[in-house]
Amino acid sequence: MTERTFADRHIGTSSADQDAMLKAVGQPSLDALMDACMPALIRSSDGLALPAAIAETQAQAELAALAAQNRPHRSMIGLGYHGTHTPAVIRRNVLENPSWYTAYTPYQAEISQGRLEALLNFQTMITDLTGLDTAGASLLDEATAAAEAMLLARRAAKKTAGNVFAVDHRVLPQTLAVLQTRAEPLGIDLAVADLTDPAAIPEGAFGLLLQYPGADGTVTDWTPTVEAAHEHGATVAVAADLLALTLLAAPGEFGADIAVGTTQRFGMPMGFGGPHAGYMAVRDTLQRQLPGRLVGVSRDSAGAPALRLALQAREQHIRREKATSNICTAQVLPAVIAASYALWHGPQGLKAIAEHTAAQAARLAASLQSAGIDLTTAALFDTVTAAVPGRADEIIATAAAGGLNLRRVDADTVAATCDETTTDSDLRIVCDAFGAHLHEPVADRIPVQLRRESTYLTHPVFTAHHSETAMMRYLKRLADKDYGLDRGMIPLGSCTMKLNAAAEMEPITWPEFADVHPLAPADQTRGWQHLVDQLETWLAEVCGYAAVSVQPNAGSQGELAGLLAIRAWHHARGDADRDLCLIPASAHGTNAASAVLAGMRVVVVACDDAGNVDLADLEAKLGQHADRLAALMVTYPSTHGVYEETIVEVCAKVHDAGGQVYVDGANLNALLGWAQPGRFGADVSHLNLHKTFCIPHGGGGPGVGPVAVAEHLVPFLPSDPMAETAGPVGPVSQARWGSAGILQIPWMYLRMMGAEGVTAATAAAVLAANYVAARLREHYPVLYTGKHGLVAHECILDLRDLSKDSGVTVEDVAKRLIDYGFHAPTMSFPVAGTLMVEPTESEDLAELDRFCEAMIAIRAEIDAVASGAVAVEDSALRAAPHTAAVVTGEAWDRAYSRTEAAWPAGVSASKYWPPVGRIDNAWGDRNLACTCPPIEAFGE
Amino acid sequence: MTERTFADRHIGTSSADQDAMLKAVGQPSLDALMDACMPALIRSSDGLALPAAIAETQAQAELAALAAQNRPHRSMIGLGYHGTHTPAVIRRNVLENPSWYTAYTPYQAEISQGRLEALLNFQTMITDLTGLDTAGASLLDEATAAAEAMLLARRAAKKTAGNVFAVDHRVLPQTLAVLQTRAEPLGIDLAVADLTDPAAIPEGAFGLLLQYPGADGTVTDWTPTVEAAHEHGATVAVAADLLALTLLAAPGEFGADIAVGTTQRFGMPMGFGGPHAGYMAVRDTLQRQLPGRLVGVSRDSAGAPALRLALQAREQHIRREKATSNICTAQVLPAVIAASYALWHGPQGLKAIAEHTAAQAARLAASLQSAGIDLTTAALFDTVTAAVPGRADEIIATAAAGGLNLRRVDADTVAATCDETTTDSDLRIVCDAFGAHLHEPVADRIPVQLRRESTYLTHPVFTAHHSETAMMRYLKRLADKDYGLDRGMIPLGSCTMKLNAAAEMEPITWPEFADVHPLAPADQTRGWQHLVDQLETWLAEVCGYAAVSVQPNAGSQGELAGLLAIRAWHHARGDADRDLCLIPASAHGTNAASAVLAGMRVVVVACDDAGNVDLADLEAKLGQHADRLAALMVTYPSTHGVYEETIVEVCAKVHDAGGQVYVDGANLNALLGWAQPGRFGADVSHLNLHKTFCIPHGGGGPGVGPVAVAEHLVPFLPSDPMAETAGPVGPVSQARWGSAGILQIPWMYLRMMGAEGVTAATAAAVLAANYVAARLREHYPVLYTGKHGLVAHECILDLRDLSKDSGVTVEDVAKRLIDYGFHAPTMSFPVAGTLMVEPTESEDLAELDRFCEAMIAIRAEIDAVASGAVAVEDSALRAAPHTAAVVTGEAWDRAYSRTEAAWPAGVSASKYWPPVGRIDNAWGDRNLACTCPPIEAFGE
Repeated sequence: MTERTFADRHIGTSSADQDAMLKAVGQPSLDALMDACMPALIRSSDGLALPAAIAETQAQAELAALAAQNRPHRSMIGLGYHGTHTPAVIRRNVLENPSWYTAYTPYQAEISQGRLEALLNFQTMITDLTGLDTAGASLLDEATAAAEAMLLARRAAKKTAGNVFAVDHRVLPQTLAVLQTRAEPLGIDLAVADLTDPAAIPEGAFGLLLQYPGADGTVTDWTPTVEAAHEHGATVAVAADLLALTLLAAPGEFGADIAVGTTQRFGMPMGFGGPHAGYMAVRDTLQRQLPGRLVGVSRDSAGAPALRLALQAREQHIRREKATSNICTAQVLPAVIAASYALWHGPQGLKAIAEHTAAQAARLAASLQSAGIDLTTAALFDTVTAAVPGRADEIIATAAAGGLNLRRVDADTVAATCDETTTDSDLRIVCDAFGAHLHEPVADRIPVQLRRESTYLTHPVFTAHHSETAMMRYLKRLADKDYGLDRGMIPLGSCTMKLNAAAEMEPITWPEFADVHPLAPADQTRGWQHLVDQLETWLAEVCGYAAVSVQPNAGSQGELAGLLAIRAWHHARGDADRDLCLIPASAHGTNAASAVLAGMRVVVVACDDAGNVDLADLEAKLGQHADRLAALMVTYPSTHGVYEETIVEVCAKVHDAGGQVYVDGANLNALLGWAQPGRFGADVSHLNLHKTFCIPHGGGGPGVGPVAVAEHLVPFLPSDPMAETAGPVGPVSQARWGSAGILQIPWMYLRMMGAEGVTAATAAAVLAANYVAARLREHYPVLYTGKHGLVAHECILDLRDLSKDSGVTVEDVAKRLIDYGFHAPTMSFPVAGTLMVEPTESEDLAELDRFCEAMIAIRAEIDAVASGAVAVEDSALRAAPHTAAVVTGEAWDRAYSRTEAAWPAGVSASKYWPPVGRIDNAWGDRNLACTCPPIEAFGE
Repeated sequence: MTERTFADRHIGTSSADQDAMLKAVGQPSLDALMDACMPALIRSSDGLALPAAIAETQAQAELAALAAQNRPHRSMIGLGYHGTHTPAVIRRNVLENPSWYTAYTPYQAEISQGRLEALLNFQTMITDLTGLDTAGASLLDEATAAAEAMLLARRAAKKTAGNVFAVDHRVLPQTLAVLQTRAEPLGIDLAVADLTDPAAIPEGAFGLLLQYPGADGTVTDWTPTVEAAHEHGATVAVAADLLALTLLAAPGEFGADIAVGTTQRFGMPMGFGGPHAGYMAVRDTLQRQLPGRLVGVSRDSAGAPALRLALQAREQHIRREKATSNICTAQVLPAVIAASYALWHGPQGLKAIAEHTAAQAARLAASLQSAGIDLTTAALFDTVTAAVPGRADEIIATAAAGGLNLRRVDADTVAATCDETTTDSDLRIVCDAFGAHLHEPVADRIPVQLRRESTYLTHPVFTAHHSETAMMRYLKRLADKDYGLDRGMIPLGSCTMKLNAAAEMEPITWPEFADVHPLAPADQTRGWQHLVDQLETWLAEVCGYAAVSVQPNAGSQGELAGLLAIRAWHHARGDADRDLCLIPASAHGTNAASAVLAGMRVVVVACDDAGNVDLADLEAKLGQHADRLAALMVTYPSTHGVYEETIVEVCAKVHDAGGQVYVDGANLNALLGWAQPGRFGADVSHLNLHKTFCIPHGGGGPGVGPVAVAEHLVPFLPSDPMAETAGPVGPVSQARWGSAGILQIPWMYLRMMGAEGVTAATAAAVLAANYVAARLREHYPVLYTGKHGLVAHECILDLRDLSKDSGVTVEDVAKRLIDYGFHAPTMSFPVAGTLMVEPTESEDLAELDRFCEAMIAIRAEIDAVASGAVAVEDSALRAAPHTAAVVTGEAWDRAYSRTEAAWPAGVSASKYWPPVGRIDNAWGDRNLACTCPPIEAFGE
């Protein structure tokens, strides 16, 4: 085929466009540009060893062949992963809809009202079902949510509290494994015990974690334990099954302070382990301690209700050495799906699903008991655990032969978990395997005193959309409020909003991938294993490392995994004192947070005026801390958007001082195919598959943050959470392969791009950034540049002087860009008062020019303010964004015209109208409301 | 599961809603309502024998098991069906996107600008590639397009011309079969000959049809034949392969007057035969004779360019007895996909695909010749026909064993057709089957004198969207302009815009269904055959007939097939003189058009004041024409939206007079589960699967119009176009099972609804119509009602008196409804000056009320005009719809406020803004332009 390659489709600029752009940048060719801006020392001399690129249909055919190697069985394994029916209306209109999945994290709240409303539905669902006051907008998974609960409990504890976190022995095994990973570096003692006995609460416990129902299926009345814990001054977290809570008394009702869990069984496929939205809800006294994102109701400039991320100052906890959590990315798309599932079914529908589940489990229990089999669980919801001395393997094999997987607890014990999808025929297969007969339907086995009396999901939103027509329209109305990549450019510095190609996205909903339990027997999951192996191999190759683990399910978790590897390596060498992590002043805040969570102390290294690591300060710090040095953590190219010339020297100095070099892969889009961190001096990196490798941002997650390491660190990659013997570093996510269910996306990307494609993409991205810098330089100073005045893949526009002269803030410019039809660049990072622009390789020249022209027009608006022609308070900049309601208002007494407000140059008839005006963040934080407001609030 | 059933999701109103609605209607229960409005005589006493309803996942699982029975081979069968890669960006953003597929035919042009633009792209693509002046917005398939060309040629002929249509013997066999079906009733003589010899043009030929390239693959220089035909005064139609035209001289360049063909290989899957967009293009002198829909450029009330259906008066040809074509539904969605495919690849990309195709074919030809095999084709594009005396079956079997299908021409001849997807490995399998070796690549075999010199697709739209990001955004911008069911209610009388559920839609893109050639061996298509069998059986059951054929690929073709069955039945009984079709005055225009095309004369039967068939007039007509009576064709419930009490009597009278009764199934949504036309007296019906059975309207097609007949007419169902011996009635579509590729939708619908579901849906639809009638009656007279003042599934609001008093037209009301966020009801059908409203069962009560309140508010606006408070020319009604550009304009000197213009009561912040104002249809017809206008036309 002489047809266009996928790379030609992925890269927005044609070669003719690129010629024109090179002229503007003053470079004769792409190679010359890369030579001029990237230090020769780091350049790879040989091409990447990736399979040659193939066309999208070929790549899908190859992936389909892998999918065919999976043999999805019916699963009754349970343990936090359940069969669920994703309603087709949600699959098609959310999961497969670019308007939902290409959107960014809702920092620009005015153009994110749709997903913010969906997340508010999520929070309302969680608070209602858990009986607690405030829920966040999702966490990464149940196990890391439990770890966050542990840290929250410690933050909430009195200074005099002990250092013990007590965990009931019925907790899910993967949760316990992650808790162990996370407790150890922080010096927290985990005590596992049977906490049904309040007397078993250990001395010095600052917190407890209880599972509800337990991993063995037991439904326990935790009231006495909670009361005793509170008497000890301990905070109680309950890991609760959300579906069970439709029938069981809510954690908040029996006194729990925190509830955590997963929302997987609310419509998200098992996907071989993830992504699924974890949740956390807390009592009101703890709400300002909540990790992760929280959506709240506020009001806009016209006084209308408007949503935005609440208590963002609280997120400062991820900042640097004061960090108490490193959570950034949430699981927005899975959370939207879970909330939509709850809307679709409503309280009655959810209860019916839970009743079906509980009835099937009770019927199975009765069947087994009738056959003389002892159960370890009397009160139960969905899980039956049976004592079958010596027969576990045989029973499991028989069921598997019938196409159904059971859980092997040990050689003498088998468990079976029912769910929404469990049919009578499934139960018959299970009974056959146990040598039992299927009993008649019986009453469920939920104890009377634990039966839920309270109502939930009473807000009208949970009952108004039960016809598919109504649901489809609601989902579209929400999507229509938001600005995603499907509308236009999202030029976010450091966040790489590139194309998420349809051919990459389609395979994530293929049932052969989606319907696989992460603990399914290996002979049923060969396709998944090959996919993961290939992807890890390719990722290792493109970064120049020895091995990659895809387990971390966010960049932050990749950072943690990388630092834990470094720490464990030092410990293994007897260097247990090396606990110090050097981080440049320009680093992402998450870096420091992760270091703290890995048990390290953070020391900041200064940057020079050009934004580079200050070598003198580095040397000073190395000298000062030589014995304690664990690692230097640096982003490359730097967060200032330049290729630092000294990176190789920096790496060498750190190594000489006995430290390890961690290169944050956030900016890998500027290196791919041209330089490999593993080859120019780094020992470990994490990658962001949701940035460089085309997993969409999903409106704020899921992300995937694999960790990549050099040979000597391979033994210190994260372990399988279900491994019988733990490795030196435990798991950082609850599933062995993390968010496996979306790894098809980077697999497809690399398979379709090949080495030449990714190399060309990098150059195109660097060219685009330099083109924007060249076009805008005379209007906005470009803050940092490397040799020849060139930037890497992003550029920082410095508005500080303009702001000083005019009073116009970067926020004003960001919001005004909405009127011009753009999502704003990154605001005030890494330098306050600036805008950082990363155009990526996927934008075409017309869109780049449209952006530049908008910025130039805005510069003229700023000048008008600076000249005194317009007061800043009266300007279109300050009043931005302009809603249709405002611009069509009867009265118009502004200093600018309606046309200037809504139709500035370059805006077409297909204009995107923001649904709300500028949002008052402070008002919302003063009047905190994080659940669906009564309908009347929206009355006009 | 006690969860909601699919029927609960499909039906918009809950039982509580229905109780409230019944109260408004004044009926105690749904049964009472149905008893009151549906004549007892027609009611079925027993339930439908359909399989019990199952949930959406179960139904999809059952359908997946059918899909698994298909074994899609690589296909080189050709004959108008080719392998093609549907670009994933188009599949996801068009074919799987409700914003595209739930839209209606673009009669309300102001809210259909997106699909109109896509169709304009289609027309531009067709005119460019064929070298002709004007192309329509698609036809049903290549064969029926050829039949339309034949009819067009006859219309264009002089009165003195003969009655012969000459067809070259290389025409596709299915085209010839359809031409035969269509020529015979009209008395046209088909003459098949080798027309490469101009002397073979028969005397009296009014037109010619030439295939280019021929079915055997030959590429012929038709210039001498065309010149000779023109000397005979004959019109020349060329059936041309669109992909070949990127390399071959265009039909318009060698003098053809008409070009027809299919656009299937432009990205639409083979789908076991359809749906695919057929095309027709003509010289400018013929453009006012063009059948089907034509999109043209006009301007809106603000003078901006705006698109709409052009020359609609021309469509009068489908009206009644003056009919010359019965085409209504086009193939909009497949046409949008074909046009998008051309945009995506651009002229260079299409040419590269054609070159690949031609090169593979040439290489195969060289391979076979090197092995000493004679070819029947020297000059060729994609098809190689080989003479293999006695070996055809063996060769075909060998290739099939290798997973590849070849075409058996006869026992001694095998053909192989290359396409976009043909790989070297495919060619190796073919060579192996022939006992040949794959030759080195060679030059294509296109003769120099036929090589295309002219350019095509030079409009910028065909080169501006080659990156996937740009393409995704373009497709979204178009979708955003349009109003589909995903935004709100489309209360079109007689067009049943009901839910198209995601679970119904998903299977159409499953590859096991999509990638099957309609002529693949039967042992590879078992799943398809079972699906068709089951669906035909279920459809026969719900209508009370003996058999159904799904072959007709539009309602109009179903009508034709039904009337041809009646005609053939009379002929078989020796009643060849029975050629008269009685049609009530209220009938759809298409009815009469179909009758004319079936060789019948139309006599109109009067209706009484209540809109019912005038029994006295019927008796008179029966008496007058007894010997010539072929059929009565009646819609039930009538187009007036009532259940006529006399239908059984009417049927009996017609039967007594020796005629057959044709009940048009357009309004079957008012009968399903309650009455069966086949049981209350009808002999034949056609159904509209795109109305009653949930196939979406697709913005104006595809439709599916199966024909259903009583036992005695079963032998007269349409034949297989490839059958060796034709049945008494030939095929009406080119594929045996018509638009098979979307039959999964009605299959899923019936499987998930079951008898109870469809019965409940009918009652809910009738209730909704009566509720709207009850709420609006005091504001707008309801024109026709049955007993107890009830309507059936739709109601007609009579605006004639209001219009007389106020000057406000139904068009004003229709356009004003856009401002209120609605698609208009059907305007002026069946009675001029009225609006016909069919709410369907899928709308929920809130949406029904929103509509009623909008209509009531509009009534107040009309009153203000009638009272003289506002002049009609100054009213918001006349100025509607209001664009954002208008309402945000600087000046405002209107008689109503901006708020009244854009934010009338009930309109929310999620308002849909029409992209253009009221369109001037007449201006566009006076200044006809049916291809993409130069970009400058859109300058502001």
